[in-house]
Amino acid sequence: MAREVAEQPAAVAATVDALRAMRSEIRRVVDERQTVFFVARGSSDNAAVYGRYLVEVHAERRACMTAPSVATHYRSHLDLSDAVTVAVSQSGETEEIIESLEWAARCGARTIAITNTTASTLARAADLTLPLRAGPERAVPATKSYTSQLAAMAILATALGRRPDALDADLDRVPAEMDRLLRERAGVAEAVDVLADSTETLVSGRGLVFGTALEVALKLEETSLRPVRGLSYADLRHGPIAIVDADLVAILVSAANGPMLAGMTELAAELRERRAKATIGIGGDSAFRRICDVSVPGPELREEVAPLALIVPAQLIVEALSRRLGLDPDAPRGLTKVTQTDPTAESGDGGTE
Amino acid sequence: MAREVAEQPAAVAATVDALRAMRSEIRRVVDERQTVFFVARGSSDNAAVYGRYLVEVHAERRACMTAPSVATHYRSHLDLSDAVTVAVSQSGETEEIIESLEWAARCGARTIAITNTTASTLARAADLTLPLRAGPERAVPATKSYTSQLAAMAILATALGRRPDALDADLDRVPAEMDRLLRERAGVAEAVDVLADSTETLVSGRGLVFGTALEVALKLEETSLRPVRGLSYADLRHGPIAIVDADLVAILVSAANGPMLAGMTELAAELRERRAKATIGIGGDSAFRRICDVSVPGPELREEVAPLALIVPAQLIVEALSRRLGLDPDAPRGLTKVTQTDPTAESGDGGTE
Repeated sequence: MAREVAEQPAAVAATVDALRAMRSEIRRVVDERQTVFFVARGSSDNAAVYGRYLVEVHAERRACMTAPSVATHYRSHLDLSDAVTVAVSQSGETEEIIESLEWAARCGARTIAITNTTASTLARAADLTLPLRAGPERAVPATKSYTSQLAAMAILATALGRRPDALDADLDRVPAEMDRLLRERAGVAEAVDVLADSTETLVSGRGLVFGTALEVALKLEETSLRPVRGLSYADLRHGPIAIVDADLVAILVSAANGPMLAGMTELAAELRERRAKATIGIGGDSAFRRICDVSVPGPELREEVAPLALIVPAQLIVEALSRRLGLDPDAPRGLTKVTQTDPTAESGDGGTE
Repeated sequence: MAREVAEQPAAVAATVDALRAMRSEIRRVVDERQTVFFVARGSSDNAAVYGRYLVEVHAERRACMTAPSVATHYRSHLDLSDAVTVAVSQSGETEEIIESLEWAARCGARTIAITNTTASTLARAADLTLPLRAGPERAVPATKSYTSQLAAMAILATALGRRPDALDADLDRVPAEMDRLLRERAGVAEAVDVLADSTETLVSGRGLVFGTALEVALKLEETSLRPVRGLSYADLRHGPIAIVDADLVAILVSAANGPMLAGMTELAAELRERRAKATIGIGGDSAFRRICDVSVPGPELREEVAPLALIVPAQLIVEALSRRLGLDPDAPRGLTKVTQTDPTAESGDGGTE
């Protein structure tokens, strides 16, 4: 896992370079279709959550998450003739994701596959494939395939925007920011100390960074074998905040700018008032960092592309915490790279992809 | 809370009776528009998750969950001229939900409000209001307003289906099934014993019953002040299942029929193999009940309407567990009926609605 985390600047740079040239093909496939549906599981689903926000916020087209069971179990006959379905799978062999893409095509959708495996069933089934350039991923927890998926989402959303190159200068800065965060490791050891000593953890973020919060929670849970939740700050305030007490460590993820920063800063203050055990802030600006008990700096990037690098310090924390707990981050207990989501399915799908 | 739980058969019957006559108005507002967007928070959001599946599975129209922040923080200009936005709020005064509905209207959507308060701002702002007949709800945890929202979802989805009366006979049986479950309380005391002694709980369900799993988790968490997660069984298998161990109690919710039952039964078997502390099955059929350590019977209703009554035994467990833990289920610590989701908003919104 540590090696694949370190390979991410190269993986993201290669993916952006390869996919940038495909924007006109993406526009041709999507055409005048107004709604983008995403379908994925696990880390790929967390990448799709970013894609969904970016398509709505940056490209201003409607975007939705598909519930796979509507395709695979209920087999609804929806009219998707005005839709594009984007299926995301590292291996491209996730049975229910392939099935969902084929179902969407039968319902009239154009289909796009985002996968790390161009020779996969998913790639063959789709109208267009956006191939990732992450290289083979061997650790069970997805890292470089996840950030490459985020890069593909940025290409997809900008392809649909008014000016396809609008975020290119920002995207070009991502690998260097990832590199810097990998080298500096600021705050990582301190965060690991706090988390090693904690039994209850939640992760919160919102909007474009919500998928990052979900991904941090999933990775922490898989590799530390403790329950960890990812919640939007709005959902957290809407009930679960009642459980905040002296046992709870909250990890708050935020871009250094954007319309969510003020609310995330206020959330950090409220968690302190409610006497949470500790708040660990990943990213944010100086005001946000001051209010968190432990501060782990994030990238200096605009919010639209910040998620590509913001996950890096979290991955460093996850990897070090797992080792500190005497566990193996590369092959967590009870998980394999290829899992069956559904026990009745013929073939498996990527455990944490 | 106990009194309001007991009032649910009457609240659901009154809501179904009142809204049945509105199906032609619903059809007129929705017209040929192809996509239904839901927007809500907390328990109302859990009701909307049911509505979203039912619209896709029963009415076979596309349905999506709106991310409120796209409206309230990013203020995207989406084209919703082919959409209907359904906003759900018990009080009808939830600031971000009102804002999201007004934003959707500006984007071209027709709008429907589902609320327990016909004189509310939300009702005034919408093209059509489906008023609930739950009566005033005083306990902080939503119960009768939640099940009345589910009834409204069933009316909405059937109004859009080929035969609007297709589920009427089933809907008419719901109040009697709720009554029976309230009277019998089978398995409730045993489930409370197991949960009182547990530190780690998760709730799983899928498809039409996924919203029920989320609602059981939210209610348990609010009233027992312990972290509880709701997960689809597919997402559970896709990573978090790694954390199943002898500390974990899993609550599995299932209808007595439908395409999810087989998978839920296999999940119960797998949790036993992985040596979870206990599985509590709510609903299901006899095979499902046999495989769970504690069985809490659910309603004898078809899957499409089962969620309306399936939540009842869970509410009985939640209420009794909270008292057993020496807490007050009517007014959980740290929550109020009116909460602010966003600290910068002018006025508040319903804490757990």
